[in-house]
Amino acid sequence: MLSEELLSALIQENDSKILLLVMDGLGGLPVDGRSEMEAAATPHFDALVRASVLGLADPVSPGITPGSGPGHLAIFGYDPLKYQIGRGVLEALGVGLQMTPRDVAARGNFCTIDANDVIIDRRAGRIATSLNEKLCEKLSAEIGRLDDVEVIIKAGKEHRFTVLFRGDGLDDRLTDADPQMEGKKRIPTTALNPAANRAAGIVNRFLNRAKEVLCDQHPANAAVLRGFAKYPSIPTMADRFGLRAAAIATYPMYRGLSKLVGMEILETGDTFPDEIQTLQKNFAAYDFFYLHYKKTDSYGEDGNFEMKRKSIEEVDRYIPDLLRLKPDVLAVTGDHSSPSVLKAHSWHPSPFLLHSKYCGMDASTRFTERECSRGALGKFSAVDEMTLMLANALRLKKFGA
Amino acid sequence: MLSEELLSALIQENDSKILLLVMDGLGGLPVDGRSEMEAAATPHFDALVRASVLGLADPVSPGITPGSGPGHLAIFGYDPLKYQIGRGVLEALGVGLQMTPRDVAARGNFCTIDANDVIIDRRAGRIATSLNEKLCEKLSAEIGRLDDVEVIIKAGKEHRFTVLFRGDGLDDRLTDADPQMEGKKRIPTTALNPAANRAAGIVNRFLNRAKEVLCDQHPANAAVLRGFAKYPSIPTMADRFGLRAAAIATYPMYRGLSKLVGMEILETGDTFPDEIQTLQKNFAAYDFFYLHYKKTDSYGEDGNFEMKRKSIEEVDRYIPDLLRLKPDVLAVTGDHSSPSVLKAHSWHPSPFLLHSKYCGMDASTRFTERECSRGALGKFSAVDEMTLMLANALRLKKFGA
Repeated sequence: MLSEELLSALIQENDSKILLLVMDGLGGLPVDGRSEMEAAATPHFDALVRASVLGLADPVSPGITPGSGPGHLAIFGYDPLKYQIGRGVLEALGVGLQMTPRDVAARGNFCTIDANDVIIDRRAGRIATSLNEKLCEKLSAEIGRLDDVEVIIKAGKEHRFTVLFRGDGLDDRLTDADPQMEGKKRIPTTALNPAANRAAGIVNRFLNRAKEVLCDQHPANAAVLRGFAKYPSIPTMADRFGLRAAAIATYPMYRGLSKLVGMEILETGDTFPDEIQTLQKNFAAYDFFYLHYKKTDSYGEDGNFEMKRKSIEEVDRYIPDLLRLKPDVLAVTGDHSSPSVLKAHSWHPSPFLLHSKYCGMDASTRFTERECSRGALGKFSAVDEMTLMLANALRLKKFGA
Repeated sequence: MLSEELLSALIQENDSKILLLVMDGLGGLPVDGRSEMEAAATPHFDALVRASVLGLADPVSPGITPGSGPGHLAIFGYDPLKYQIGRGVLEALGVGLQMTPRDVAARGNFCTIDANDVIIDRRAGRIATSLNEKLCEKLSAEIGRLDDVEVIIKAGKEHRFTVLFRGDGLDDRLTDADPQMEGKKRIPTTALNPAANRAAGIVNRFLNRAKEVLCDQHPANAAVLRGFAKYPSIPTMADRFGLRAAAIATYPMYRGLSKLVGMEILETGDTFPDEIQTLQKNFAAYDFFYLHYKKTDSYGEDGNFEMKRKSIEEVDRYIPDLLRLKPDVLAVTGDHSSPSVLKAHSWHPSPFLLHSKYCGMDASTRFTERECSRGALGKFSAVDEMTLMLANALRLKKFGA
């Protein structure tokens, strides 16, 4: 893999525009001989493919199923094995919490304990999200502050919530305060480094206070916390690639991941047409656009082949709108595969389409997993996608003389 | 490359079964336009390919011809550049010697020396294997022990033999006791580290005694030793992948390599049908099976295109038996290529076939080098094959959130 330093040394700025469309969880698997992409009617993609090159990209490494974090970091050009984002931070991004450098984030579960503090249900019977929200409000009201540390609590789905401990001198080198097994007692966090002693004390006081506050809330009568993490320091896309980059995404997780690499987050609506409109309005103001489409993943994870197919067809209808903006480079890919037969993220490499004046051509006629497996770009590592986009935008100098 | 630690952290156990069929030296080269695989009539492989994905795997690195050791380690998921097994150990495995942690193994040659101890034939005229066996018996009778060190000698083919020095405090940091050239005097081994002084003394006493014992055995009137090595410590497949792994192989070398990574060695007969029967009998008891087929390599190394083609056809006839066991994952590959036109191992990447419920599909219709080069798995590193097999067996958790 090319070093970050070398790539940065080759950057030359120009006024080209790069548009990266991420169809979340795009790749699929065949049902009755055809994958979701193969079953979809995509006249605009079909036409685009004839002026593009295709390939298949491994987000992390062959056989490895990535979460959304590593999947996106790779296509933004950040080695996901180097930049491992703590679980607490990803949760905070996912629920839309804004983190500061003073925060330690953690992922929480409501759980059920017996009279001896033994966890008898790690998920508190998967309580309703509405109850979760009420309990988080109650905890916030009762434990909103511990000394000078602000405690920010936000409900997730069912039994899940996120906590930010915001204060000075909080280090995240902490063990999980969660035995991650039923039939075991709750456990406190411990500092893995003396610098984290203060944070450990605060977290443990929080957990004990939470138990007091929740004592009459069976089955959600206690909480556990894990994945303690501070907001990481990552070089921005401006620093690394000389790009003024903007993100258009409707879900907090993807907006958060974009912010992590220094993108500007553009305000947008809830639908894909809203996102397209946001792109059109802002097209003059940035060099690089990350446009996120969520439904391909959602329907894949739901196991809904038909709706995933239709989502691909929905995106297809907007391809002419994207092309009318005349981006110098248009790339379309997924952050990982989400085959509807697996109802989950999967390890299969992501279809990748690259269109530019200088992309070359191959024999492909459709944007599908199989056509991508025979495309001119071959099989490659997703972290190289950014380099390919930059090259096609003529934003990279020659290496060596 | 993914670190071993990261991969191990993603392991989740389940009750799936993985079957890895290694057709030794499978890949070939065309003669009159068709390779051995292309010339073979393989109706069962042809059918299997339609429900599989293909690819080409480099055992070590593009252009590098591997021995059986590195070739197999790679497909077992062990980086062959990290785990370099000493030549003496590979020889010992090859002749079926069981090594203990107290042993130093070495590869030996009978040779011809003149009156001045100068080597005039490094291979003693390639004496008959039967004579070799008699000489090894004689050496064992005369030099079966040196002080408290047991000396275990086993004949190989022609002039080759293997020695194990079994005793306490024997270190393998020793130079070759072999000038590896004719017209030079025999040389003693020297310790590369003071810790190996004792072993050096024992080895040199052995060589001098061997010369005395063999003095009237012209042309095999002396011996040289090289490739001193102790049995390496390698993490097992159980430790790394959570797999109860079993090996079915008829040749000692492959049984030894399997044992090196902690596989259980199943007793089996001499033929492929014997091996299949062993597989059937033991299928319930393990998670992972390594099934080795030798003849594709033997005929390749003999330069016998026709018999290599027929061997591929023999394996093809047993594919239905393998499928009847309903393995969750079936992978078929070689440990290296052995084109009959080269009469040797070669650097060409190995054809790889992966079949599972979730493997996806490509446009391939036959299991051949050329079809593999266009398969959905593309060109990849053989060390990733284990990751792909584990992924397809749903034995890997998601990386990151």
